[in-house]
Formats: sequence, structure tokens, C-alpha cells
Amino acid sequence: MSGSTIGKLFTVTNFGESHGPAIGCVVDGCPPGLQLSEEDIQLELNRRRPGTSRHVTQRQETDKVEILSGVYEGQTTGTPIALLIRNIDQKSKDYSAIATSFRPAHADWSYFQKYGIRDPRGGGRSSARLTAPTVASGAIAKKWLAEKFNILIRACVTNIGGVKLEINDWDSVNKNPFFCADSEKIPQLEQLMDEVRRSGDSVGAEVFVQAIGVPAGFGEPIYDKLDADIAHAFMGLNAVKAVAIGDGFDVVNMKGSQNSDEMDSKVPGYFLSNHSGGILGGISTSQPINVRVAIKPTPSIRLEQKSMTENGDSTIISVKGRHDPCVGIRAVPVLESLLAIVLMDHALRLGAMKSMLK
Amino acid sequence: MSGSTIGKLFTVTNFGESHGPAIGCVVDGCPPGLQLSEEDIQLELNRRRPGTSRHVTQRQETDKVEILSGVYEGQTTGTPIALLIRNIDQKSKDYSAIATSFRPAHADWSYFQKYGIRDPRGGGRSSARLTAPTVASGAIAKKWLAEKFNILIRACVTNIGGVKLEINDWDSVNKNPFFCADSEKIPQLEQLMDEVRRSGDSVGAEVFVQAIGVPAGFGEPIYDKLDADIAHAFMGLNAVKAVAIGDGFDVVNMKGSQNSDEMDSKVPGYFLSNHSGGILGGISTSQPINVRVAIKPTPSIRLEQKSMTENGDSTIISVKGRHDPCVGIRAVPVLESLLAIVLMDHALRLGAMKSMLK
Amino acid sequence: MSGSTIGKLFTVTNFGESHGPAIGCVVDGCPPGLQLSEEDIQLELNRRRPGTSRHVTQRQETDKVEILSGVYEGQTTGTPIALLIRNIDQKSKDYSAIATSFRPAHADWSYFQKYGIRDPRGGGRSSARLTAPTVASGAIAKKWLAEKFNILIRACVTNIGGVKLEINDWDSVNKNPFFCADSEKIPQLEQLMDEVRRSGDSVGAEVFVQAIGVPAGFGEPIYDKLDADIAHAFMGLNAVKAVAIGDGFDVVNMKGSQNSDEMDSKVPGYFLSNHSGGILGGISTSQPINVRVAIKPTPSIRLEQKSMTENGDSTIISVKGRHDPCVGIRAVPVLESLLAIVLMDHALRLGAMKSMLK
Amino acid sequence: MSGSTIGKLFTVTNFGESHGPAIGCVVDGCPPGLQLSEEDIQLELNRRRPGTSRHVTQRQETDKVEILSGVYEGQTTGTPIALLIRNIDQKSKDYSAIATSFRPAHADWSYFQKYGIRDPRGGGRSSARLTAPTVASGAIAKKWLAEKFNILIRACVTNIGGVKLEINDWDSVNKNPFFCADSEKIPQLEQLMDEVRRSGDSVGAEVFVQAIGVPAGFGEPIYDKLDADIAHAFMGLNAVKAVAIGDGFDVVNMKGSQNSDEMDSKVPGYFLSNHSGGILGGISTSQPINVRVAIKPTPSIRLEQKSMTENGDSTIISVKGRHDPCVGIRAVPVLESLLAIVLMDHALRLGAMKSMLK
Repeated sequence: MSGSTIGKLFTVTNFGESHGPAIGCVVDGCPPGLQLSEEDIQLELNRRRPGTSRHVTQRQETDKVEILSGVYEGQTTGTPIALLIRNIDQKSKDYSAIATSFRPAHADWSYFQKYGIRDPRGGGRSSARLTAPTVASGAIAKKWLAEKFNILIRACVTNIGGVKLEINDWDSVNKNPFFCADSEKIPQLEQLMDEVRRSGDSVGAEVFVQAIGVPAGFGEPIYDKLDADIAHAFMGLNAVKAVAIGDGFDVVNMKGSQNSDEMDSKVPGYFLSNHSGGILGGISTSQPINVRVAIKPTPSIRLEQKSMTENGDSTIISVKGRHDPCVGIRAVPVLESLLAIVLMDHALRLGAMKSMLK
Repeated sequence: MSGSTIGKLFTVTNFGESHGPAIGCVVDGCPPGLQLSEEDIQLELNRRRPGTSRHVTQRQETDKVEILSGVYEGQTTGTPIALLIRNIDQKSKDYSAIATSFRPAHADWSYFQKYGIRDPRGGGRSSARLTAPTVASGAIAKKWLAEKFNILIRACVTNIGGVKLEINDWDSVNKNPFFCADSEKIPQLEQLMDEVRRSGDSVGAEVFVQAIGVPAGFGEPIYDKLDADIAHAFMGLNAVKAVAIGDGFDVVNMKGSQNSDEMDSKVPGYFLSNHSGGILGGISTSQPINVRVAIKPTPSIRLEQKSMTENGDSTIISVKGRHDPCVGIRAVPVLESLLAIVLMDHALRLGAMKSMLK
Repeated sequence: MSGSTIGKLFTVTNFGESHGPAIGCVVDGCPPGLQLSEEDIQLELNRRRPGTSRHVTQRQETDKVEILSGVYEGQTTGTPIALLIRNIDQKSKDYSAIATSFRPAHADWSYFQKYGIRDPRGGGRSSARLTAPTVASGAIAKKWLAEKFNILIRACVTNIGGVKLEINDWDSVNKNPFFCADSEKIPQLEQLMDEVRRSGDSVGAEVFVQAIGVPAGFGEPIYDKLDADIAHAFMGLNAVKAVAIGDGFDVVNMKGSQNSDEMDSKVPGYFLSNHSGGILGGISTSQPINVRVAIKPTPSIRLEQKSMTENGDSTIISVKGRHDPCVGIRAVPVLESLLAIVLMDHALRLGAMKSMLK
Repeated sequence: MSGSTIGKLFTVTNFGESHGPAIGCVVDGCPPGLQLSEEDIQLELNRRRPGTSRHVTQRQETDKVEILSGVYEGQTTGTPIALLIRNIDQKSKDYSAIATSFRPAHADWSYFQKYGIRDPRGGGRSSARLTAPTVASGAIAKKWLAEKFNILIRACVTNIGGVKLEINDWDSVNKNPFFCADSEKIPQLEQLMDEVRRSGDSVGAEVFVQAIGVPAGFGEPIYDKLDADIAHAFMGLNAVKAVAIGDGFDVVNMKGSQNSDEMDSKVPGYFLSNHSGGILGGISTSQPINVRVAIKPTPSIRLEQKSMTENGDSTIISVKGRHDPCVGIRAVPVLESLLAIVLMDHALRLGAMKSMLK
């Protein structure tokens, strides 16, 4: 039943299917007085949009957003902001062949088991296309966090199919088709991606997501901790299989004396390291929030795989369509948006308390 | 503000501080008719209890649970089940020295920044002691899932301080002080833990958590997915820094053709592998749900660390107290409980829909 | 902050302003398999639509609904159903005169105090126009309740401006412009309404709302009782000032022996009367659910009233626009819809439990 | 399923049965820094306590409250406040006769239909005894609202069994056993109540509840309006059958020009009347919030009534026990508490937004 709303005070309710008339969301809880235009949102949507390079899906979607409510004379009014994106490029025929079979590693089987009915066109509700409204709503949260708290949210790909990428240059991230901060590796990535695409296979990726400038105090123990809510938002994103905060899985091999972030009152920000990734006890510390995410290879591949049909027959499937050879790439703006949504919700939750302490 | 309730239909509301009069929880949404006694709950609490071996904290707590409501003549009635655990061993003097300093890597700093006030005795609200009510409520969920769906939930430690542990023998897990399924490594673990304890340091751990027998269909896309809610529950547990489902971070280096779980209608359960960890599109597939969790080393260590006081002075801190050298060990029953709570909530959410499809 | 979502398992998230680009809602939690077309929804919207007689506002709105998602090949799929209604007749000039003054008894003052910003066109977010999405979503709930439980939901006006109306003939309710079940009084009502309209004043109304066929067991004590949720939904409707269940305020003057609904196992339905209005202990009894609602006179009247401006000056205001002389009339389909939404939510909540008792 | 939590940011989770080991609640979301002792809470509990005069139930309960958490050195810490009240006077034998029959107008039937199991002792979960935790949590909210906003919440009985009571003297309300503000009527009330008690019957009541000093801006349209949430809380209280805000049902017979609250910038508070009861558009106006509530006669009466048993046999029932002849009387402190809980929740929700507007 209902599970398409995220957040408590700042809430986003998502709707739509890949090949239905439209996708979109309702953003409730944005305070009044934020300058907001469709251009603000479009900028972020364009970063996620398909068809921008040969390394992502060639589906053609303008993803043009329309603000339906909540903005008056260029300012938010405190009422719900509805965002609408019409679906344009609905090549349903691409999907007809697989309409009655289950694509391995995809949501086809589990949706069918759950609902009994499914919209097979482009994955229907389970399509990564539904991350567009997340990005649209995240654009509002990012703008608000930047203006109100001077928070910077950014992300980059740190591994594609085994090619490890350094974070050398944040400025270059939005200037290459891989959202990577390691310009030297780009030729290697292009070669890898061309090979993957030609082979009909796909590859996984790791993404690093960061928020700088988050004040101390975000997070509501003991169940709505900040790290818990980030993990919830990130693990809920299509194809994500792991979420790590700060040192992540490395802590397994560390001593307490190594993992500890010592403090010194004479040092700006007080902390001498940031193993914790900016969150202690589920509450932000004011250090940068650092998260790493593992994204599995696109399940829709051209290579033949064993599968079965809705009728229970064994079959061999080869997914044609126009799929990203690496869904991890376009996850970058989505993860930024999800982090922004979580942080804005917690900013308001903290604000409720702080407003009462004066 | 309020953040101490988890779940939507099956909800657990946690209360208490490490050294206050009592800790406990209110479990709301348990269907009527479950046979439930205090012994059922006590069994699980005893697994988590401190002081059971030299490798965990020596704090003496009986953690005796009392059922205050919701059970009549040995059966649940469908009304809230309140569980109470009195705090017995409140050696507050142990903590007086650190009452005004911040223990590095602990929640002291972030709580103080957030609330301005904190109960410094034993970590107050941020203490791992507050996982006892989670275990108590999880005991109810585990029993209910076992009886209603024949679901088995289990966990074991797979790494302590760099010592990798195999899963050879589930039966041995509850018979050794490390909740490990690799009996041959126990002498090595005992030696490691003795060293760690003597050195005044601590170590991290990895825990594997599994649910077998979960029917297909649990999980509510697109934000309340089953993996999202598991990640939320697990990342919210004290000291957890990473959560991985199925192949986890390994997917980064995999091809789509490798990570895919092919299907065959002639094979029992239909799937030929379980890279996905039992969840696709955020919905359970009926395969085992497999999760790995990274738990950082106990932040409270005897070794001296740089820190600062509430007044802003630099200081050196050495945490005496009676702390677990590896908090990951006692996390085992807690993670099982959290998984049970999440699954029971989703069982009911799915049940709401399924009840309407006949 | 966010307050535009109603329901827990069946949720409706409303958006829009009276004179913005569009209004609408996202309906989440409708089970799959319900036959649903835009016509099903349009039928209910047409009952609420303005401009259908001289006794309601002359604003011209077709209120044409578009289903954006959640329906595939004429059936719901279990995913969110987004409903869109474009605003057509946005005569903003009508409102320019009152854009900076507060209309007495209207939400102008309180919205301005709360948000600091307001969309003054047609009342903006506080306009009764925002009940259209409620009706659209309620149409889905009504259809589902009828098909799944054979529940009938209906309402009629029982008092307009002091003219008491009997409930003689339910069939006539949708055939007269007053939604009244007392055909003999129609000429009297027409005369009253014509006088009221000409005088530039407005009148209050009482509406009776009923659900027949609700099974016993809806309602979740002790805070989410069925009567509590009905009162919440109804009192939240524009202009509603009182909600009464069963005997309502008459219970004040009754003895326990008079108010009691005695039972007899030999009588169909077991109850010998229905003073309780179908709800005991916050749970439905299977008797008809009977609710009465008081709706205040339209606050926007042509008669001159004392008021003040945003700048703090005293002023005299006369609201021109095209307003209903009695908002209570068009509240009939809205109240039916709200009752349907509440009942469907509780049907699912009960279903979650019942699904586990077999 | 779960329905025992009220509020969004300030939440109260209630547990317990009339004759179980204990009743209580967990209060989550109280900001840190409030001075709070058990005496503060006990004072309000004593107002609701049974056995204080011959006109209320003679059950002997000390209702001694214990604070289990959330308060450190006399101050709230921002963490959940658990409140425990042990049940002392559990004369279960009184109820054995009716354990298998349904008391008319009581929740016996509906609980049995819903849950299949019920704790018959003293009404179990449906007992008015469960309002004690509501009063205990409301005491916290009342104290906080008084200190933070200087809000005064008060209530009095305005009608008992048809005897209309004026509001002449608020100071006298807590000095008579009827919580009435009309001292002259007390002899008449005593006579009425003695007669009612002797006759084995019961009477209804009307209660007036008021909050003075609520700032403008509380309430979250369009579904979580302040009046909607008050109606939810009040209608959910045992025996309440109607809730009216401001002029309530009188608006049905009023013209818009009569019901309107005109404004004048030169008058303190700006409004020239308060027909609206302090709420417009679902948002507080800063005028007093005025609510009237109808409470049905106690359903448990000694007079014989027709009923049926769990086995489906017809029977005659006479409820012995020790019941209030008029439950409306002791509802006074409960309604005050519910209003306080709702207002505190909305204070925090408004605070979240206001904190972001500077």
C-alpha cells in the first residue's frame, strides 16, 4: 500500500510510470519565500536526462518540468508544490517482446508477485525514469539548503566497472559524461563503456556523495537518525545495493584508536579527522557528510539470459530497448537530490525544536 | 523532535536512558491471538545481555522484562504491548570524570550540540543499552513471523577486527561468546579479544543477517521499499557504518551478466542464484534476504585521546567504565530483532492489500 | 509545514490554488484490479462543479479530470493514481480589489499571519475549489467500497438557512439543485436562495452524511478511532464548524437508558436502535454510520463589512466575485468523498489485521 | 493495527488496560529545558482521579505517576518521557458476570467483532481509565504551552443531563465536584446526580473547552488544520458524540453577515467578535479557541437492558460495577489535556516553518 511519500515535515510524493501520460511529484512543506522558477528545477533535471551522450540511454526525453502550484509571483507560498513532467518518448513497441517474461535481476518478477498486475512498458513504475521527479524535488531542497544554510551537496562517480576514479577535481564533474572527478581516466572510461555497450553487457559503479556545511544537530534518535534516513533514501534508489557512511566497511578492520575522530578546541571545526563521515550518534557533527553507494550493473542487457514467463514456462531473454550500460552514472544527480531531501526534512525537524529554545 | 518510533503498521516506540529508572518500549500493531509470555522475550534479551562472558562489558544487568499490557491470559489482544526493563546496575560514578568532556567518536558532542542538555551517565539516551527494548520488541516480531510465515531470522559475526569468519555451522552460533559460525577460529578470537581488552583499545566487526522464508511481495515502492527500510533500521543502530544487501559493494566490479539472477521455471524457487540478496525493485523475491553490516570499534576506549570539554577547553580523555571491546558482537541479536520488526511491518502492509484481492 | 496528505494506508495528497495552473491530487494505496476510468471520476466531479444552477457560484469550470498514472488498460495497478484538473476560468481581476484586505470570516487573515505570503486570487490555497481533488479521489474510494464491501455512501442537505428539510426521498437528492431529500420544500428553498442572493448575504446549512454496509471492526483505538478520523476529515472541510455522530448534541439531554442501543440476538443486525450512529468505542458496529455537519454561511458576501488591510488600515469591504450563497449545498459530494476516503483507509487498516488471523 | 499514537512532532503513545498491571504513555518530542517533576503531572491526574466525590465512580485508584525517562536533574532533555501508572484497584470480580455478554452502547461488541479476543475486566482497553495517561501527557503540554506562549487552557461543564450551566465564575470550577462555573446550580446538580445514581441510570453532559493566548498561525491546511486535529482528538475521547467550534451548529441558522467576525485595525486583537471560535481556514487567529463537546450518558447502567452473549444468546444485562453516573464530569481535565497535546504539536509544526523565515 501507500509507500510513495518520503519525509516527515518536508515530504515528496512521487507518481507515474515510465510510459504513462506523465510523471511528477508533490512537494509539501517547503517554507514560504524561496525564489523558485522552472529553470531552477530544469537545470538539475537536465543533468539526469537521458540521451546526453553515447554512454547513457538513447531514449529521447526532454523532461520539461511544469510547476503546477505552490509558487506565486516567483516565490514559494508554503503550500504544496506540484511538479509535472509529461512523458514524450514512449516507444512501447520496444518492450512488447518482454511484456510477459521476467527480466532477470529486474523488478518484473517481484512486482508481478506483489500486485498481480503490472504495466510492462519500460518497467512501468519500477523504471529508473521515476527518479526524475526525485531530482525535480531535490532541486528545490538543494536551492533552499544553499540559501538558508549555505550547504553544498555534490557527488561524483568513484568507480565504473572496476576502474577506480580519484576525486581530484570537483569542477570537472559536470563537464564529462561520467560525472567523474578524475579527468585522466576519461579515455579509459570511454573505451570501457564502448566495449560494454558493444558486448551487450553492463557494469556496476560506486558513487561518492557529500554534503558540506550541514550544521550540527540534524537527526532524531533513536530511530529517525540522520544516517538511518540517508541509508533509507539511498538504498531505496533503483539498483543501489550498499550504503556506507564515513569509513564504511573499512571500520571492520580498524581499532577504536584508529577510527576515532579526536577533537581539539583550538582547531577550526574542533575535529582532527572525519572517519565518522559527519554523523555521530545519528546526529550531524558539522563535519562534511560523506557517503559511498554501490550501484549494480543495469539488469537490462542484450546478452541472452535464462528466464521464465508469466505462464511459468522457461525461456531465454535478451533485452533490446535503449538502456544505460551503467545506471550508476545517471544516479549522481539523483543521489544528490535524495540527500538534499533528507537534509531539508531534518533541517525543519531540528528547526521545530530550536525555535522553542529561545 | 519525536524520532523514537519505528514502523508504520507494526510500530515500536522506544524510551529510556542508560542510567535512568527504566528503559522499555510500546509495541503497537501486533495482531491478536499470538501466544506470548515474558519468557519468550527474556530468551532473546538474555542473548544480548551484558556480562555473559569476559569478552563483553562486565556491567551487571539482569534485563528482566515485564509485560505491562496487551496480553490477556497468555495471548496478545491486538492492543499495545508495553515492555518494561528496570535499570539495576547504575554505577554512575564511573562516568563522573567524563560528564563534561566529549568522548571522541561518541555521540556526546552531537547530542550536546543538538539538545544543549544531556544525561551524561553511561551515554544517556545514546547508550547501546537502548537496544535492549529493540530486542524485546523484536522477540515478539520474530515469534510472530515464525508462527505465521515460518520465517527464520538469524545472524552471525563474520569478521572481528580483521579476523574473517566463515559461516560453517549455524548451530554453533549461540554456543560461543562471539556469535560466530566458524568454531575453528574461536581460539584465535579469544586471543585477539584478550589482547584488545588488555591494550585498552577496541575492534570493529562485520555481521551477516539473514531471513529465510520471506514470501514474495514485502516492500512498498517507491520510497518504502523493503531494502530501504532494512537499511534505515540497520544504519540507525549504534556504531553501524555500512549496510549491504546481497552482493553489496561487490556489484561495483561486476558485469550485468555476472550479477544477474537467472530464472528457470523448472527449478524450485525459480532463481538460479541470489546475488540480489532476496530483494528486487525493493520487493522481496522469496529468496533468502541477506544483509551485511559494518560495525565500528567501540568508541569508548581506555587509551588516551585528544578531546575537549563542554567549556571549550582542550583535554585528554581516557574512558574507564566497563565497555564492550567489540560492540559488534552483541549487535547480533539486535540486528535480528530489527530485521524482524521491519519484516513484520511489511507483512502487515502487504496483508492490507492482499486481504482486498480475494 | 506539510499537512496536505490525509490517510495512513490509503493516502490522498492534495495540491493547487484556486487560480494557479492546476489543482489535483495523488492517491496512493489503492489496491490493484479496480476498474477505473476518467468517467468514473468525472461523474462525481460534475456533482460538485460550479455553475450548475443559479443557486451556486457562476464561476465556469469544466473540472475535467485527467488520470496521469496508476491505471493500466482500465485497471488500477496498485501504484499512485495522480489526478489533474486544469484551472480554466481564472478571472483574477474580480479579486484585485480585495488582494490587500482581509475578508472577514475568511482565511485571508490567518494565512497571512502564518505564511507572510499569500496568493490572493480567489482565496488561493484556502479556496473551496480545492475540494475538487478531494471529490476526485473520493470517487475512487466510493467505487472501491461499493465493489468490495457493497458500501453505499450518500448525503443530503437537511437545513438551509433555518429551513429544516426532512429525509423523505433519497432518490430525489441528485435531481434538485439543493441536494435535498424533501421535494416539497424546494419552492421554499428557491425563494429563500433568491432572496439571499439578491440581498448580498449568505446562509448556513446542515448536511447529513451516511454510510450503509460498513462491516464491524473499522477504527483503530485509542487515537485513530473511526469517529475521530471522520471528525478530522469533516471538520477540516472549509466552513464546517461542527460534526455530530449518531444522536450528536442530543445526548446531552438523554439518560443512559434512552441513548443505549439495546441488542437482541434474534433481530437482524442485532441492534434495536442506532443512537450511536454506527460507531461504538471508535469502531464500526455494522449499523449505518450517521453524521451531521454544520456549515457556516459563505464568508464572501456583497454586504459591506468592517475590515482592515495588510498595512494595518481600517477599511470597508464588499466581496464581489461569484460566490455560492450557501456553501453547504456543494459540500454534499465533498462530505461523501471524505467519508469514503476515511472508510477506505480503515478498510485497509482492518484488512492488515484480518489477513493475519486465518 | 497501530492507532495508539497521537501527534506528529509532539507524539503521545498510550498503552494499558483497565485491569492490567499498568497504564501509561510515552511522550516524544518535548523540547529540552522544561522543568518537570512528577508533582506537576500528579496535580492534573488528581483532577481526573476517580473516587473524589460521591458523584463519580467509587473505584479507588491513587493514579500515582512515575517518570521513567526523559527528565534529568528536573529538566526535560528532549528525549522520550515515559510515564507509568500502576493499576491498584483491580476488582475483577465485579466484571465476571458480564465477561461474556455485550453491554449495550459500550465498546464490548465492536471490540469483540474486531479483535476476536478481549480483556473483559473493566472494559479492558476501551475503559475510560485509559484517559489517565492522556491527562498525564497533557500536563506536560499544558505546562510547556503556559511557559513558552503563556497559553491558558481551561474547561468546564455547561450542561449535565439537561441542566444548563452558565459560565459565571472560572475560579469556582476546580472547587466543586462538577467542574461547573455556575455555583448557584450546584445544589440542583447534586440533587439530580443523587437521583440518577439511585435510579441506576446515567446522564449526558456538555463541556466547554477554551484556549486563550494561542498565537495566530497554528494549523496546517489543507488536511491537518487545527480545527480538524482538535475534532480528531476530542471525538476520539470515550463517549464524545459531537464537537463544535465557535458558533457550532448555530451557524446553520445564521446569515453570513451575522456569523462574520468583522475586523478593525484600531481594536486590540483586531476582531470585533469571535463567532469563528478562534480558527479560520483551519489556522488559529489569536482569538480564544472555543470548543463545545457533547458527551453521552455512561453506557454502564444498573437498569436492566436487552443484550446478547458472545455465544449469540439473547440476555438481560444489568451492569453493577462502580461507574460514573455522568462520564462528562471527569472528561473536563481530559479534554483540556487533549487540547494541550494538539496545540503543542502544532506549536512545533509552526515553529519548524517560522525558524526558517528569519
